[in-house]
Amino acid sequence: MAGAEQGAEPEPEPGLARRLAAGGQGHVLRFWPELGGAARRALAAELRGMDVAELNRFFRRARAQGGGGAAAAAGPDARMEPVPRDVLGSASRDRGLLPRWERHGLAEIAGSRVGALLLAGGQGTRLGVPYPKGMCDVGLPSRKTLFHLQAQRLRRLQQLAEEQHGTPCHIPWYIMTSGRTMESTKEFFLKHRYFGLKKENVIFFQQGMLPAMGFDGKILLEEKGKISMAPDGNGGLYRALGVHGIMDDMERRGVQSVHVYCVDNILVKVADPTFIGFCLEKGADCGAKVVEKTNPTEPVGVVCRVDGVYQVVEYSEISLATAQKRGPDGRLLFNAGNIANHYFTTSFLKDVVNTYEPQLQHHVAEKKIPHVDITTGQLIQPEKPNGIKMEKFVFDIFQFSKKFVVYEVLREDEFSPLKNADSQNGKDNPTTARHALMSLHHRWVLNAGGHFVDENGTRIPAIPRVTNGRSDAIPADVNDNLKDASDLPIQCEISPLISYGGEGLEKYVKDQEFRAPLIIDENGIHELVKNGM
Amino acid sequence: MAGAEQGAEPEPEPGLARRLAAGGQGHVLRFWPELGGAARRALAAELRGMDVAELNRFFRRARAQGGGGAAAAAGPDARMEPVPRDVLGSASRDRGLLPRWERHGLAEIAGSRVGALLLAGGQGTRLGVPYPKGMCDVGLPSRKTLFHLQAQRLRRLQQLAEEQHGTPCHIPWYIMTSGRTMESTKEFFLKHRYFGLKKENVIFFQQGMLPAMGFDGKILLEEKGKISMAPDGNGGLYRALGVHGIMDDMERRGVQSVHVYCVDNILVKVADPTFIGFCLEKGADCGAKVVEKTNPTEPVGVVCRVDGVYQVVEYSEISLATAQKRGPDGRLLFNAGNIANHYFTTSFLKDVVNTYEPQLQHHVAEKKIPHVDITTGQLIQPEKPNGIKMEKFVFDIFQFSKKFVVYEVLREDEFSPLKNADSQNGKDNPTTARHALMSLHHRWVLNAGGHFVDENGTRIPAIPRVTNGRSDAIPADVNDNLKDASDLPIQCEISPLISYGGEGLEKYVKDQEFRAPLIIDENGIHELVKNGM
Repeated sequence: MAGAEQGAEPEPEPGLARRLAAGGQGHVLRFWPELGGAARRALAAELRGMDVAELNRFFRRARAQGGGGAAAAAGPDARMEPVPRDVLGSASRDRGLLPRWERHGLAEIAGSRVGALLLAGGQGTRLGVPYPKGMCDVGLPSRKTLFHLQAQRLRRLQQLAEEQHGTPCHIPWYIMTSGRTMESTKEFFLKHRYFGLKKENVIFFQQGMLPAMGFDGKILLEEKGKISMAPDGNGGLYRALGVHGIMDDMERRGVQSVHVYCVDNILVKVADPTFIGFCLEKGADCGAKVVEKTNPTEPVGVVCRVDGVYQVVEYSEISLATAQKRGPDGRLLFNAGNIANHYFTTSFLKDVVNTYEPQLQHHVAEKKIPHVDITTGQLIQPEKPNGIKMEKFVFDIFQFSKKFVVYEVLREDEFSPLKNADSQNGKDNPTTARHALMSLHHRWVLNAGGHFVDENGTRIPAIPRVTNGRSDAIPADVNDNLKDASDLPIQCEISPLISYGGEGLEKYVKDQEFRAPLIIDENGIHELVKNGM
Repeated sequence: MAGAEQGAEPEPEPGLARRLAAGGQGHVLRFWPELGGAARRALAAELRGMDVAELNRFFRRARAQGGGGAAAAAGPDARMEPVPRDVLGSASRDRGLLPRWERHGLAEIAGSRVGALLLAGGQGTRLGVPYPKGMCDVGLPSRKTLFHLQAQRLRRLQQLAEEQHGTPCHIPWYIMTSGRTMESTKEFFLKHRYFGLKKENVIFFQQGMLPAMGFDGKILLEEKGKISMAPDGNGGLYRALGVHGIMDDMERRGVQSVHVYCVDNILVKVADPTFIGFCLEKGADCGAKVVEKTNPTEPVGVVCRVDGVYQVVEYSEISLATAQKRGPDGRLLFNAGNIANHYFTTSFLKDVVNTYEPQLQHHVAEKKIPHVDITTGQLIQPEKPNGIKMEKFVFDIFQFSKKFVVYEVLREDEFSPLKNADSQNGKDNPTTARHALMSLHHRWVLNAGGHFVDENGTRIPAIPRVTNGRSDAIPADVNDNLKDASDLPIQCEISPLISYGGEGLEKYVKDQEFRAPLIIDENGIHELVKNGM
């Protein structure tokens, strides 16, 4: 595999070929002689930044840790314990405490001590779109994208905090992209003028990439002149925080609490003051927001303790016997479903970046990785897994927390991820995301004293009928309006600039009757017909 | 509207026209002069069986009761109380008692004292098929229909009861069809030789029909010579039980407990011995099997007490404030979701048929009913509701129970209704029904000590990965096998003849490894490749 070094062509730059060869990765230059000038420059640039010795160390440690394969044979299963009640806060069980937690969180926001950190390195591949997920429009009446909704929620929160505390404040928004999404994300924000946020409070940074490697530890080539690179997992966050000086930025701004979350949840309560207030009151350095897992085989990781240490056990690592376990109350014993919504103090994050992260091993994902055969130069599309990608996960650092807490929220209020394209499976797609948001906003209107009426002026029940047939043994009539079923829920969308979590709507809707679709935004109330009562 | 009587044409039969006219329904003969011989005979036959005075009484009482419209303004809302714990059995909270209840129920089945009663009057209209729902094939590997699955579950139950008690037994299966589904249902059973059941133990009977009526109380015509008829609701059961002598048949057979259920739930545990045993131990005359409602706006009726009396409050009758109420444990206060699975003693049913049912008023469903305009003879397709259909519901009789109990089961084990055609909404359709069944059977295999392996022989986790991407912030790779997502769950189907509820599978699967699709039926184990361990 030392062909390139011994070839007639000059090596890319002094020492590089030798360094690669010393690390057993000299084969990546195998096709150097065939490459044109631009391809050579690109490849050389990529290789220049690569620490081959470190990469090989990552590979050895990751492999030694176990294949990361499918079976849970030697998994954490037998050593799992559920989250104890004393570290658990619950939006459904601790309702009396929610106002206090929210006030505490808002005060912290008003003091500009809270930041939001968005994990947005993902492309919309599974979703079938060629751009970052945050740019997705799921077909809301407003056609707002996920980025747009999140930005407006931050603006509303700032406004609420300012109103209640009389001081201007800012929630800096740190957005981690990947090499694949950075440019399009930045362009999108620029084009939309940061959705009304101050440009200096939106901070983009990029997570790292790692080469895909064969099972033999050799770097795979995607093309003759191109390394097969993949982002290093959402846990690449911690390294990126250090590399890009983000911790310094937080310190400069006085940020003490950070809400870290994934881009794909349309209901996400960005910088949720109640969650932040709960974590503050508990004196936590690290917290996870969860939803109750109710079906044993739901594909969601669960927050729990393993050997006394907090972690997320992924759904593929749990046995059915453990997933099925129930407590005396009939609920699943391991029901703290991870939704990638975390709280960290900046001081904990700093320790992670400086001390703990480098100790973390990568997880191994075995994949079918198309690659150029080094001998023949042919592109191979493997039928079975032929190599690995190395990733860290954002929750890998829970184990280092000195005071870890868990906050359970209601799924219908806070969690509806966008993962798939629309299909008859119907899970986690644009339709379910859109419906989840409109259903929430419909409930907000009802809870604020508003009503919806149909085209005849008759009030529509809180839970609208799916069709005219009330019960299953009653044949649905051929003449029923079948369209009703797909029109559910009631079309209702409230701009985050008007309400962050359902607050402040009485003045718009109390004792009013509306016909859907209804939009309430900074320009007022929009519907087809409106009748005062 | 006395045109027909005074016209040149002879009246249909002596007295009929006068009777109709006396009841204010003479208009249904308005087009008699224009009808041909066959149409006249059909119309006369339909009218002959109609009790006009009773029909008008139904209409007056139903209308007096309230429009049955949408708003829950004067609804049961404020008077609702949840099911108290002492009448509640739970498959998740009372697990220690389940074996005892099951033994009790099986003993009752072994004594041939248990019957099953299927509500199968519904057509597959919403489902988009032109035949009864029970004939639907949702695409299981075996291509079995809902009727087929239910019949085989009954056969297996009989076998289990016989094995444990050494006596032959039968579970008579009463199948209520409607005028629209009777012929095709009977033909289907005949063609499939009653799926191995004894013909004399499958008893078909037909629920009644009632005319659709305008808001003015006039019967609507579907065609000039045809009344617009609709089945009288699944609560038409009780009248039909009397009319067709079903109670006598039950008495003759010695049936003392009846499990009544709807055709559309692919997971239904027909004549569930645990449910029956629970009701017997509680000394109940009436019981409802429910699943926990976890989302306030899920469109499901809830079992509760209103003014101290048990009933089902339908989802369209509950306000959001009430639907959202939670107990101290964080669960919805009204969470006993009705799944149309009921237990009755025959002695209670007899009282219902003889005494209570006639007291029940019909519910009113306002509908858009196409009809022939009596003046012009033109067919009208109304844009808004123009009339009503009158229905009773099977749960209307809960109020008459002297000892009512509720039995909560796990949704993933027992409830997946087939209501809609496949669509991107993805609820309650053939895909979700098929997946629910295969997911349950997959769990049965794992719980019995079996394993599934992938094409490389690697064990597949209990909760298979949706794609290779583990977490959302990690971009799914373009090269991942996207097909995985729609192939979920693992294709696994176990014939009800082999296992009714997961029992008895160890001898087939323990310590074995299988590749999906896997079918286990009376002919053995079928899969593509099988490796002993």
